[in-house]
Amino acid sequence: MTFGAYIPPQAKNGLVPVLWYLSGLTCNWSNVMEKSGLQRVASELGIMIIAPDTSPRSNEGKNVPDDDAYDLGQGAGFYLNAVKSPWAEHFQMEDYLIKELPELVSAHLPANMERQGIFGHSMGGHGALTLFLKNQNRFKSVSAFAPIVAPSQVPWGQKAFQTYLGNDEALWANYDACALIAKGKTNAHILIDQGAADNFLEEQLKPHLFQEACDSVGQELSLNMREGYDHSYYFIASFIEDHLRHHAKTLCTS
Amino acid sequence: MTFGAYIPPQAKNGLVPVLWYLSGLTCNWSNVMEKSGLQRVASELGIMIIAPDTSPRSNEGKNVPDDDAYDLGQGAGFYLNAVKSPWAEHFQMEDYLIKELPELVSAHLPANMERQGIFGHSMGGHGALTLFLKNQNRFKSVSAFAPIVAPSQVPWGQKAFQTYLGNDEALWANYDACALIAKGKTNAHILIDQGAADNFLEEQLKPHLFQEACDSVGQELSLNMREGYDHSYYFIASFIEDHLRHHAKTLCTS
Repeated sequence: MTFGAYIPPQAKNGLVPVLWYLSGLTCNWSNVMEKSGLQRVASELGIMIIAPDTSPRSNEGKNVPDDDAYDLGQGAGFYLNAVKSPWAEHFQMEDYLIKELPELVSAHLPANMERQGIFGHSMGGHGALTLFLKNQNRFKSVSAFAPIVAPSQVPWGQKAFQTYLGNDEALWANYDACALIAKGKTNAHILIDQGAADNFLEEQLKPHLFQEACDSVGQELSLNMREGYDHSYYFIASFIEDHLRHHAKTLCTS
Repeated sequence: MTFGAYIPPQAKNGLVPVLWYLSGLTCNWSNVMEKSGLQRVASELGIMIIAPDTSPRSNEGKNVPDDDAYDLGQGAGFYLNAVKSPWAEHFQMEDYLIKELPELVSAHLPANMERQGIFGHSMGGHGALTLFLKNQNRFKSVSAFAPIVAPSQVPWGQKAFQTYLGNDEALWANYDACALIAKGKTNAHILIDQGAADNFLEEQLKPHLFQEACDSVGQELSLNMREGYDHSYYFIASFIEDHLRHHAKTLCTS
């Protein structure tokens, strides 16, 4: 597995907060590092960024299963632990993000593991919301760009869950932000930006479902609909400063 | 030919200044548009950015010559008019940038052609400096990232000039920033940023040659050596705000 890390200059003087960025379908660590411009703001705020890959990959002799479709297999791990063959052997992305990679980061990088936040884009927004909701002792802040908020109810999520998880509805609910938030509100203020001209808005993203789920439990949510913006990294680059400052309000206070 | 254009919101209210960005070897219009983050600053300052390709390409049935090397042929046009076969038919990049593309931009985009600047990276820094020096009636401002300043004296330039131009030394001098500035200083303040950890610094870039050439004619030059920075778009993204503000001082004053 390859991941990206941005380490701000403040790390010369001690441990710095860590913000995890989860990418969307087809992406790897490089998209946000090369296209979002986040280093400018992260260097000001003193936040380390960790950008994992979106799935296991076939390299170093590993024969990882894949699918010809862009929304399944390599590049499309959906940040879950697969239980169905042939995926279960390698597609253990939840364990990778919750157990394996944090240990590596903590051991080798100047990361203050008491101050972690998480955000992401599209499938990575799904990953950020669900991992945050299930690990509130670890993550203090959360946000998302154009997230898949209700994978159990949309084609991308249904295809992935059917393939990786099978028909077990309880398993599906364990990876669905709308289902998870229904268990109760969190202490965090959740920030979501969504392009109003996003081609995937109506069929795959449906942020109003998350708004309704948050409203029903009293969860604080800022859902910003951005007129004219699509699903691309131009959209992310336009609003990533807002997201970093949102996380800094929680992660960088003394 | 494909080019990129960023049009700032100020263009809704009238014509805006135009800043031309010329890319380096292997690049096309997309590198600066996707990786530099320039839109953030250009949208604040109200500057249009035009990002041409680095050479003609084989598309729409056109069979454009190429070379297996990354530093020759497609992606490596060196912003000159080739005279040697088989390049001369298509590789007329100087004419493209000085005649053809400005007419297209002026006719179709809200560009104030009285307020034009030019900048670029590496081979594109060479292009920016030479085209500026030869067209001071058109370009009011100029800057460069890690430019090739003396192509007649370094391997990249010598290979390209030999291939595209042949042995005519007068032709070479017409595309060499150090040779061109020796003809006399300009009214512009030239800005150059150069990574001190750039792999190409010693063999291909040699910015001290341009510093000496500027000093010898009294040309104003700010040559900033940036410790730890390499030749990548991370370097460009780090300093592009400075460059846009440099151009704005000339292009955006009333």
